[in-house]
Amino acid sequence: MVEKIVIIGSGPAGWTAAIYAARANLQPLVFAGRPKQVPALVLPGGQLMLTTEVENYPGFPEGVTGPKMMAFFEQQAVRFGTRIQTDDGQNPDVSNPDDGHAYKYHDCTRIDLSSRPFKVYGEGDQVVEAHAIIIATGATANWLGLPNEQRLARSGGGVSACAVCDGALPIFRNRELAVVGGGDSAVEEATYLTKFASKVYMIHRRDQLRASKIMAKRALDNPKIEVLWNQVVVDVLGDQKISAIRLKDTRTNAESELPVAGLFMAIGHTPATAFLGGQLELDAKGYIKLKDTYRTTTSVDGVFAAGDVVDSVYRQAVTAAGMGCKAALDAERWLAEHGIE
Amino acid sequence: MVEKIVIIGSGPAGWTAAIYAARANLQPLVFAGRPKQVPALVLPGGQLMLTTEVENYPGFPEGVTGPKMMAFFEQQAVRFGTRIQTDDGQNPDVSNPDDGHAYKYHDCTRIDLSSRPFKVYGEGDQVVEAHAIIIATGATANWLGLPNEQRLARSGGGVSACAVCDGALPIFRNRELAVVGGGDSAVEEATYLTKFASKVYMIHRRDQLRASKIMAKRALDNPKIEVLWNQVVVDVLGDQKISAIRLKDTRTNAESELPVAGLFMAIGHTPATAFLGGQLELDAKGYIKLKDTYRTTTSVDGVFAAGDVVDSVYRQAVTAAGMGCKAALDAERWLAEHGIE
Repeated sequence: MVEKIVIIGSGPAGWTAAIYAARANLQPLVFAGRPKQVPALVLPGGQLMLTTEVENYPGFPEGVTGPKMMAFFEQQAVRFGTRIQTDDGQNPDVSNPDDGHAYKYHDCTRIDLSSRPFKVYGEGDQVVEAHAIIIATGATANWLGLPNEQRLARSGGGVSACAVCDGALPIFRNRELAVVGGGDSAVEEATYLTKFASKVYMIHRRDQLRASKIMAKRALDNPKIEVLWNQVVVDVLGDQKISAIRLKDTRTNAESELPVAGLFMAIGHTPATAFLGGQLELDAKGYIKLKDTYRTTTSVDGVFAAGDVVDSVYRQAVTAAGMGCKAALDAERWLAEHGIE
Repeated sequence: MVEKIVIIGSGPAGWTAAIYAARANLQPLVFAGRPKQVPALVLPGGQLMLTTEVENYPGFPEGVTGPKMMAFFEQQAVRFGTRIQTDDGQNPDVSNPDDGHAYKYHDCTRIDLSSRPFKVYGEGDQVVEAHAIIIATGATANWLGLPNEQRLARSGGGVSACAVCDGALPIFRNRELAVVGGGDSAVEEATYLTKFASKVYMIHRRDQLRASKIMAKRALDNPKIEVLWNQVVVDVLGDQKISAIRLKDTRTNAESELPVAGLFMAIGHTPATAFLGGQLELDAKGYIKLKDTYRTTTSVDGVFAAGDVVDSVYRQAVTAAGMGCKAALDAERWLAEHGIE
């Protein structure tokens, strides 16, 4: 049996693609990723599983936690007939997200796009054939990798990799914050945070910004931004909430403490495209290139992509969800054009 | 005082742009449209105000009514500091959508993009100056204009202008349905509906389809689709639910009844761009043209567009919301580049 649509990924793009494909009676099969497998190819539920409160996904005026929101997406996809690739071949009961059912989910390890139907390889010796594939494997923010950074990021303790998502939270208002990075997006995040913060430190390991000239000037001209040159963050201090960061001077190795109420990473993202093995055209940063940027078509006919795995610009839950919808509608029309019902 | 961002429109794109702009501390001002004004330039709340159950907007596994969903969007936008242009200049209390507060909302009648800051004209002699504008005025489906058609469309009685939105509803399963239209999208909608229906009639007023050759062939080859040539719908029958349509033969004027469980319009959409007075580049169908289809920039610097007013392809709540988010982020970055804080 050849699957009509296989969806790889289970963030906002993946589940939205599944909702639309399922409602189009295509019984999509989702490779949702392996929870707690490190490194997991696909982060099950996507980046939102690492966030606490989501305030900017439209439809939840009081906010919603990231994991709860992704459970809603999953339940909705399954309600309309989405199937999920699991250890025992059984669709889980997704009505209770706390029962650990996601531990049965399978990662996709590689795909073969050399001929149609395509082949999708799961864990072990599983091979699934598919007429169309939607890739929604996302991207992960780059972190420093410090244990206290990860602990405070996961507990909502004031450490984040997304200023647009989290900058407006009350805990950051009129406080001193730090941004790690020296590129264009670090300047953008720092500038964005000056709307809320009393002061924003940019922590940069070199003695000049990597950002473009115009962006660097914007940071240096902003009275609320101070760049701390030749500094790296070596620890994050604080129990429930961040209280300070420990810095090390890259020239002298001298260490110092900087009290801050928030720490934002802006050292890039890594799209989950390594498993493609070069079979799809990627851009210089490793994101999947779309053939027509209004749609979700890739360099291989029958393969569609959506969400952060193609998006180095917006990276929001609702933009990823919108693209997931587009990918399902594009795939549905493509299947109809090819007479696959 | 010059507004930083004025948003025109209050569907999923408009409110999502407002949520993001408000969270970026830009205190956006929304022209939400005038309820019950016929013809209203902007349909307040957008097309979803005419729908009953929304099952495909991700995040609501049990579904949500269109008006309730738009009330959630509006509450979320206002929670973060969005202002709404009203009769008395006061922001309404949006916590109770049933209190009629929306009747105070203002339509925008025209805009002047000839110099910056732009001018946005409200009702009466109101003029608002704005550094940036986001246009999210949407599009409206074309209807036949029959009283019973409108009554059953608004009450969830089986009359719809969106097969992708409504086709999967249980009331249409294994029933005979009708699609009005003869173009490419009529064939697409009819083909889509064959996934659920026992049979789909295409009602077309001419003796050949306007659709492209390949699409026409797809309809004619599909055993579940029957085209009724030279027919127009002159009435829709049924009390709570549609039971039949009354057809008139365009050659003989003979009338007949066709029992159906659902009626879908596929006779095009009209984007709400007339008020622009030719100041933005439009495509042949009247939709706003984007300069870069991945982003939301238009032919005028500082003017952004999102949602169905640019989208003749997908037209879903979640795709419109995704674009609204993009427009706010694009506008926010544009304002920062121009030193407008």
